[in-house]
Amino acid sequence: MSARKQLRLGAFLMSSGHHLAAWRHPDAKADGGLSFEHFKQVSQTAERGKFDMIFFADGVSVRDRGNINALSRAGHVAHFEPLTLLSALSVVTERIGLAATVSTTYNEPYHLARKFASLDYLSGGRAGWNLVTSATNAEAKNFNLEKHPDHSPRYQRAREFVEVVTKLWDSWEDDAFLRDKESGVYFDPDKLHVPNHKGEYFSVQGPLNIARPPQGYPVIIQAGSSEDGKNLAAQTAEVIFTAQQTLEDAQAFYTDVKGRLAQYGRSPDHLKIMPGIFPVIGRTEQEAQEKFELLQSLIHPSVGLGLLTGLVGGIDLSNYPIDEPLPNLPETELAQSRLKLVKDLAQREQLTIRQLYLAIAGARGHRQIVGTPEYIADQLEEWFVKEGADGFNIMPPYLPGGLDEFVDLVIPELQRRGLFRTEYEGQTLRENLGLPRPENQHRTKVLASIS
Amino acid sequence: MSARKQLRLGAFLMSSGHHLAAWRHPDAKADGGLSFEHFKQVSQTAERGKFDMIFFADGVSVRDRGNINALSRAGHVAHFEPLTLLSALSVVTERIGLAATVSTTYNEPYHLARKFASLDYLSGGRAGWNLVTSATNAEAKNFNLEKHPDHSPRYQRAREFVEVVTKLWDSWEDDAFLRDKESGVYFDPDKLHVPNHKGEYFSVQGPLNIARPPQGYPVIIQAGSSEDGKNLAAQTAEVIFTAQQTLEDAQAFYTDVKGRLAQYGRSPDHLKIMPGIFPVIGRTEQEAQEKFELLQSLIHPSVGLGLLTGLVGGIDLSNYPIDEPLPNLPETELAQSRLKLVKDLAQREQLTIRQLYLAIAGARGHRQIVGTPEYIADQLEEWFVKEGADGFNIMPPYLPGGLDEFVDLVIPELQRRGLFRTEYEGQTLRENLGLPRPENQHRTKVLASIS
Repeated sequence: MSARKQLRLGAFLMSSGHHLAAWRHPDAKADGGLSFEHFKQVSQTAERGKFDMIFFADGVSVRDRGNINALSRAGHVAHFEPLTLLSALSVVTERIGLAATVSTTYNEPYHLARKFASLDYLSGGRAGWNLVTSATNAEAKNFNLEKHPDHSPRYQRAREFVEVVTKLWDSWEDDAFLRDKESGVYFDPDKLHVPNHKGEYFSVQGPLNIARPPQGYPVIIQAGSSEDGKNLAAQTAEVIFTAQQTLEDAQAFYTDVKGRLAQYGRSPDHLKIMPGIFPVIGRTEQEAQEKFELLQSLIHPSVGLGLLTGLVGGIDLSNYPIDEPLPNLPETELAQSRLKLVKDLAQREQLTIRQLYLAIAGARGHRQIVGTPEYIADQLEEWFVKEGADGFNIMPPYLPGGLDEFVDLVIPELQRRGLFRTEYEGQTLRENLGLPRPENQHRTKVLASIS
Repeated sequence: MSARKQLRLGAFLMSSGHHLAAWRHPDAKADGGLSFEHFKQVSQTAERGKFDMIFFADGVSVRDRGNINALSRAGHVAHFEPLTLLSALSVVTERIGLAATVSTTYNEPYHLARKFASLDYLSGGRAGWNLVTSATNAEAKNFNLEKHPDHSPRYQRAREFVEVVTKLWDSWEDDAFLRDKESGVYFDPDKLHVPNHKGEYFSVQGPLNIARPPQGYPVIIQAGSSEDGKNLAAQTAEVIFTAQQTLEDAQAFYTDVKGRLAQYGRSPDHLKIMPGIFPVIGRTEQEAQEKFELLQSLIHPSVGLGLLTGLVGGIDLSNYPIDEPLPNLPETELAQSRLKLVKDLAQREQLTIRQLYLAIAGARGHRQIVGTPEYIADQLEEWFVKEGADGFNIMPPYLPGGLDEFVDLVIPELQRRGLFRTEYEGQTLRENLGLPRPENQHRTKVLASIS
């Protein structure tokens, strides 16, 4: 085991892979989104590679793809719900973390706290929650609204949501349950703490009807990069997934977020920043380029336009000339940071609409690296050593092949350099990520009042 | 294979078993509620016994037990959330159905439709949903309310809820997904039907972001026995779990509910009525009685009183003399049918408070049968043959032993009589229960307009 600081890796899984045309790739599993065998295989591959965790994004709608033509050619429209899928995957994996996105906008804290605690028990302490707010009208319309709530109330609700969830997880002290058959006492009443939360968005009495999770709290992940998002992350997140294109931007983001931790009494080590990486791997640079070109050639123009439509806030671009520059687009309340990335890219590189969708069809705003295993390892090492990242969320272009290649070719190279584990250090996700187990807030208060 | 009509069996599982003092039994798994290995074992036992399904009740709170003393001695306060648990159990079972209660009162139809569809895919068509309304204040207080909604609006919401859920399950026709790599068409746009539901309680646009479930719809189960409950069941349920104490009552309920089906154009065979049975099994009658007495002796009085408190609508009975008759209790909006059962029992048998809680400590209003395997089989056969039941939901007193005994001793007796399968007939829960696969409502409409 090397004494070098270790980087963290997430395997960000999508049905058939991340590339927009992934499902059409000859080696991709086109119906992967609804195949448990498929996800079992890729999860076990990720565990063989000693990834810290597998990770699923989520939304509570079919994504807006501009029009029915684009939608009917897009792959990721019918797939497992992540918490049920991760529960099943907990049975066929042993050490890898199991993380999923669940929105705070259209859920109730009691349900969420309970389900993640349940997953944490099923997996022996391997659950992670990616806390997001929902910002698409397609989702709003599935939950009794006409349009999604504004940015600021979404974040206010999210902040209170996580407060309620942690209070619920702390309903019971770790050693509350005695289960003493002789005396007939099941739990120690002094170790039950009824939350009785009353706030602006939520009134939740509690207690939770499940014991405190094995990890104390499942690992809390966030992905927002607005000011609100960064502040919420600095206060509550333990992992940040972020989209960064250049080392300079990554370093600026890293320094910015880590600098916000002190005001919440937190150590910079207790928040791991993990930019997304879309790797296309070849044994030679030419092979990698050819692989990438094959994927790009599979994108139908309507699907490319549909992707842009989703990113620019629902404006249908199919009536603009595809080989002309991106027109000026109105401001929108929808995921602002993603919109800015797209506009900046189009302007910086002087791209036409077609060139723009081709440029983001793989990584969708995340960093794309096309090359040999050594080249990819060089890039990851540079960002890691120069404090642009604590690790990376790896986005395989297609599945299962794209993950196999990363595990078989890039991971051994990172291990040779002493940058990545060859065995799991701990039993829980928290232990493997090097994160402290949170004290029960009631227990902490008791100790504070004694000292 | 016998030509006799076959009865259906559910294995109704609770953490350590159904008896109020189950967790204190020497052979019970006291921490079963949070042990995946425990549920894996009992689920596999149920599958070995060829049960149609395992079944979990659920509530979104810790149950009201009157006071902290009663609560701290009650066993079932910290346990897995059923949908995450069933998802994990889908991996370690192959043929048995996987059914769970989820309330329509504090959930959103989009989430529920999606999660059950996901479970149906994970399990290859073995999911069942027990549709209930929530009627405790403890639950209301976890979801921004002070008290639970009234009976009538709860049922109005439930009726619209199931309408939205089935529309969502029908978002896609069964053969909508082509996934044709060559042409790049993922689904056939003509086979997508956007629900666009607008009703009194819900506005849900859809479509669902998962394909139509393997069973069309997961099997829909209900347990309500009020007029509203029976009508909703006649309209939408395929299985009814019910609590019946006598053959006459069971027959009356059976005839009543089956008689309501015609007005919804349904066949009586397409709704299976399954009363709960709490069996205490001995190789001799004396052994069975001794087993039962052991369990009864383990009930702490505060736990007995706490159980009654929950059943009579939250009135704390600990200030009444325990060896005097049940006092007159006020009417309540809380689960009326359960309250009536308790009051009728106390009056019919002239029971004191202590005798009353002892009388319901096992089966909680369901039928209790203490005896030899032959005697228990006789009782089940009589109800089945005399049209009091299509099958039974078996409630083992303690786990794992109580289920082992049923599978090893009672099931073979039922099989010898030609009343129960020796092999699963089908692959899906629906096939095993002998229920038709529902047509997609949009497909049905198309055919209707052609003919």
